Amino acid sequence: MNDRQAGINMYRFCQKIFPFCRSITGEGVRQTLKAINDELNTVGAELEIYEVPTGTQAFDWTVPKEWKIRNAYIENSLGERVLDYKNNNLHVVGYSTPIDTWMDLEELKEYIFTLPDQPDLIPYVTSYYKERFGFCMSETQKNSLKRDKYHVVIDSELFQGVLNYAEIVIPGKLNREIFFSTYICHPSMANNECSGPALATELIKYLLQNKDKQYTYRFVFIPETIGSITYLSRDRNLQHLKTTMLAGFNLSCVGDNRDYSIVESIYGKTLADRVLKNILYFHTNDHYSDYSFLKRGSDERQYNAPGVDLPVVCFCRSKFDEYPEYHSSADNMSLVSVEGFQGSYDVMTQVIEALEYNKFYKIKVLCEPQLGKRGLYPTVSKKGEYDEVRPLQHFIAYADGKNDLVDISNRINVPISRLIPIVDKLIDNDLLGVISG
Amino acid sequence: MNDRQAGINMYRFCQKIFPFCRSITGEGVRQTLKAINDELNTVGAELEIYEVPTGTQAFDWTVPKEWKIRNAYIENSLGERVLDYKNNNLHVVGYSTPIDTWMDLEELKEYIFTLPDQPDLIPYVTSYYKERFGFCMSETQKNSLKRDKYHVVIDSELFQGVLNYAEIVIPGKLNREIFFSTYICHPSMANNECSGPALATELIKYLLQNKDKQYTYRFVFIPETIGSITYLSRDRNLQHLKTTMLAGFNLSCVGDNRDYSIVESIYGKTLADRVLKNILYFHTNDHYSDYSFLKRGSDERQYNAPGVDLPVVCFCRSKFDEYPEYHSSADNMSLVSVEGFQGSYDVMTQVIEALEYNKFYKIKVLCEPQLGKRGLYPTVSKKGEYDEVRPLQHFIAYADGKNDLVDISNRINVPISRLIPIVDKLIDNDLLGVISG
Amino acid sequence: MNDRQAGINMYRFCQKIFPFCRSITGEGVRQTLKAINDELNTVGAELEIYEVPTGTQAFDWTVPKEWKIRNAYIENSLGERVLDYKNNNLHVVGYSTPIDTWMDLEELKEYIFTLPDQPDLIPYVTSYYKERFGFCMSETQKNSLKRDKYHVVIDSELFQGVLNYAEIVIPGKLNREIFFSTYICHPSMANNECSGPALATELIKYLLQNKDKQYTYRFVFIPETIGSITYLSRDRNLQHLKTTMLAGFNLSCVGDNRDYSIVESIYGKTLADRVLKNILYFHTNDHYSDYSFLKRGSDERQYNAPGVDLPVVCFCRSKFDEYPEYHSSADNMSLVSVEGFQGSYDVMTQVIEALEYNKFYKIKVLCEPQLGKRGLYPTVSKKGEYDEVRPLQHFIAYADGKNDLVDISNRINVPISRLIPIVDKLIDNDLLGVISG
Repeated sequence: MNDRQAGINMYRFCQKIFPFCRSITGEGVRQTLKAINDELNTVGAELEIYEVPTGTQAFDWTVPKEWKIRNAYIENSLGERVLDYKNNNLHVVGYSTPIDTWMDLEELKEYIFTLPDQPDLIPYVTSYYKERFGFCMSETQKNSLKRDKYHVVIDSELFQGVLNYAEIVIPGKLNREIFFSTYICHPSMANNECSGPALATELIKYLLQNKDKQYTYRFVFIPETIGSITYLSRDRNLQHLKTTMLAGFNLSCVGDNRDYSIVESIYGKTLADRVLKNILYFHTNDHYSDYSFLKRGSDERQYNAPGVDLPVVCFCRSKFDEYPEYHSSADNMSLVSVEGFQGSYDVMTQVIEALEYNKFYKIKVLCEPQLGKRGLYPTVSKKGEYDEVRPLQHFIAYADGKNDLVDISNRINVPISRLIPIVDKLIDNDLLGVISG
Repeated sequence: MNDRQAGINMYRFCQKIFPFCRSITGEGVRQTLKAINDELNTVGAELEIYEVPTGTQAFDWTVPKEWKIRNAYIENSLGERVLDYKNNNLHVVGYSTPIDTWMDLEELKEYIFTLPDQPDLIPYVTSYYKERFGFCMSETQKNSLKRDKYHVVIDSELFQGVLNYAEIVIPGKLNREIFFSTYICHPSMANNECSGPALATELIKYLLQNKDKQYTYRFVFIPETIGSITYLSRDRNLQHLKTTMLAGFNLSCVGDNRDYSIVESIYGKTLADRVLKNILYFHTNDHYSDYSFLKRGSDERQYNAPGVDLPVVCFCRSKFDEYPEYHSSADNMSLVSVEGFQGSYDVMTQVIEALEYNKFYKIKVLCEPQLGKRGLYPTVSKKGEYDEVRPLQHFIAYADGKNDLVDISNRINVPISRLIPIVDKLIDNDLLGVISG
Repeated sequence: MNDRQAGINMYRFCQKIFPFCRSITGEGVRQTLKAINDELNTVGAELEIYEVPTGTQAFDWTVPKEWKIRNAYIENSLGERVLDYKNNNLHVVGYSTPIDTWMDLEELKEYIFTLPDQPDLIPYVTSYYKERFGFCMSETQKNSLKRDKYHVVIDSELFQGVLNYAEIVIPGKLNREIFFSTYICHPSMANNECSGPALATELIKYLLQNKDKQYTYRFVFIPETIGSITYLSRDRNLQHLKTTMLAGFNLSCVGDNRDYSIVESIYGKTLADRVLKNILYFHTNDHYSDYSFLKRGSDERQYNAPGVDLPVVCFCRSKFDEYPEYHSSADNMSLVSVEGFQGSYDVMTQVIEALEYNKFYKIKVLCEPQLGKRGLYPTVSKKGEYDEVRPLQHFIAYADGKNDLVDISNRINVPISRLIPIVDKLIDNDLLGVISG
């Protein structure tokens, strides 16, 4: 496979789902899930899609009404459209109630959201749990509106419907699970959040094309917050995850090519933290951003909540809330790139391979094994001869049953990708055993 | 209450007890305890005063004779007083034996203590456990003494008497105790140590005026070293403290307005360490002095001794032995101030309130509670909206039963004073329970 | 004893054994062990020397053939010797097979090792486990060789013989052991490794001249790698060491006077690590090199291998592989010095004395003991009086049964040599007990 092919796939997928008007419920969600399925069908797989009725109790929350939007615009007294939802679905406050009325400029302004500090960008605004309506536009446009009478129309509906989410499980030899979560509720913003579903979809394809995994892999596609809460509250999902999850990753904002980031789990010590930090450290030569849980913001919040306590971190390129285009119309297709996607894909496939090999190993002989007779060591002993075999020697020294592969990699400062062939070679030579993990 | 009123009270009290000639036993101690009682009587309380006879065994020590001093002076051959104890009680070495004799200058000098590096100050010198006599004066004065015959008089007495200390207990709902200790054995020095009894007295008044405390509060007023050792050795006091003390604070040098200091407990990890450091961190914006136990010097020595092992730290403004006026005549009323006292009072009342709320809390719902429906969260979701509710969200995230309030405050970098209303609000909404503590 | 006498002894001994052509087996090893015995005989002691036959299995290894070398040279067509092993035994690759043939320059060069980056030095090269022959010379000399026919002679032998090692045990009151290991397999290089046996020999003399030790001391003199592996695999040695060893020290490169170094044990936390770091910290005023186990290279590798797990560190002056003369002809007698040896001796004798006193102590009285009445404390109390007694007070504070002497020294920043008289004084006064250790 072309080493940019995954990035190209993800970029194209992102482009495809970018225009859909997603929200926490409704048609946009379903369009997005269908697009994912179209992609997965190419490898013979399909998401299981769930419907949860409005009003269903989910822990402390209630599934809200479904939102449908057909049209939204503002016209001046000459009938000229000064704002049209068809141009950019960020123009309408998410979950806006319907309206069809005339307002003068003063009144209209009360319903307009802008970003005064980024005067040319349209903000992304929602009001899920209190019924209201509103419009978003650039500060520049707002300031250019003339004193006039405006026809204000939102053709929307809030009704007893369903909340959708989807799931796919790729069984491995073991029932211990690696978990991925991403969300499908943001309208037309590329990085946040067409990118997460794009990466998740490509990772599913990777796993289906590289079978023989030890672990079972589970992916969920959900609306943020209410989706993860609903998911965890149903079908004994929480109980199942608590007993099987080895490591989990929330994927968000993974399409740009500026930074690599982790948002740690609540105490920053789980296997998910350890493996992702290890991979990022070597992948970026230690130039990545390590955010504590105090900087959380996406569904890692729910997965790490008291009593939920799942070992889930968040993986981002530029982290949400930290890059200037965040939650605005500037988060568009020009922000993401093939290189950005490819980098995310490379990191997460390395994470998967590292987890697959992450055992507690123990060397089978006392003292150092004689590597020379097995062709694993130089036969001439002279100054500087050993640099090449140092990783092998270091691995053997710490393969004492007390360190997993991530520990060893960290201790000896050798990437896991370089240790995997060493593990294979030592097992082939009957010098290494797996203690646990 | 005026937010300087406590400081004013303490400054005045300090001024009142400053002139008494205190030592580890004797009339000065009793005058001081009476002054405290006069103050406490205004809120209907009274110290219990104890007498321990000379010769009583206290662990490895023996209660010394009681010391009484009536007069002390040095006169030259013309009958002029070149030193008079009535001018400054530091002029006599504490516990001096009586003397009435004539000496020439050479001999006299053997009995004179000065501070050569601070030539204008009178040092504070004692000799509790070896009988001797001596005088203290400035280096300048000593150098000005002329060759002459001097009449050297100390009208003192060492006799079978008592050692006094005092105690007061303010019962709370629980028998777990917060402990305060300060000392009453230093003669006329303002910061070290009229200030400690002044602060302790004001804190007793605070507790009596703010009832409904969870914990029981115990204050002891003792002579340093022999007093704490005697106290701990009697009446099963040590056993009682070991089973009930939650946190203890030795108060010393709390009246000046330059620094804030903690002297840590022996390993620096007790609740007393943690809560005082937390309060000082936020109160001073991290500009306070954190001294390890290696810098100890006051009764924290006894409370932390092997086998005693009580969770006691020392709280100071400028720490003893670190400020230039320490143990000299420059430690007078001009060194302490209303502001200095008020700062100490503010810190220690915050410590008390923090301890009262320092429980292990656990949130009662799975996943995040829906704060919006309870009016605790913005209903519109837009960039930058959440800064104000971050402390609430952070508190909830770490209210998992594994962290006490001090831990949470440290982790999320929010002062306890700001978390207390959050705790109240969440309990009111039935979202939070107390696990223990 | 002259405070340079040990250094002088070691330097002379080093000079004596420098010329022997050592390898992992053979006559050079036996000459070296005899020289050690000559030295030990002066104090009435003698090494026990062991022979292990070629072909003996030692864990994953096999004892190799014995190597004997009588002569080796290269002559040009005029019969002029361009290289003669008699001038420097580094000229022959260790364990070279015999050869007697003519080669042209091109072919000869294939058998010549040099150090291109250090063109005037002869490298040290061996080929223990693959039979080959070779010569070592300076890059300069190699480049000066003319196109010619060369007579190439190595008069050596590889035969069924023995591997030798030696051991001596100095019994103490307890059967817990302090262990020293050094190696006797390097040909004419002074620091690496005539110095290790020189120091070990002098330490044995020290222990025999300073009897009444608590612990038993064991020294082994072995060829590197195959020697330690063979030693550990025989006579239940490993089992014995695992049950008795308190701390172990591999001695290597201890004769130069530039740095002091430790190579830590695998996790850097054993008593051997703690005590050596403590002594080096105070001895060098914190100017020493602390190498992690990743920088290991000598027999600490075997002692710390998984399943062996002995608490062994390596002590060096300039560490092997870190100084420019390492493994070359420049590692000669001009590199080592009396001062260098004396420094190593001073450190290791301090280590021995620290270990002898390294108990968990507990003070016998509650609160501070009254030191004054025992003459251990000033009787006059005045500013600045206590600096001298601070180490005593600090020791008492931490003599709570939870810290060994190394811990206390580290915590209170007082060298163990200054704490030993304090321990003696407190035990004499019946104030201190030994809890364990």
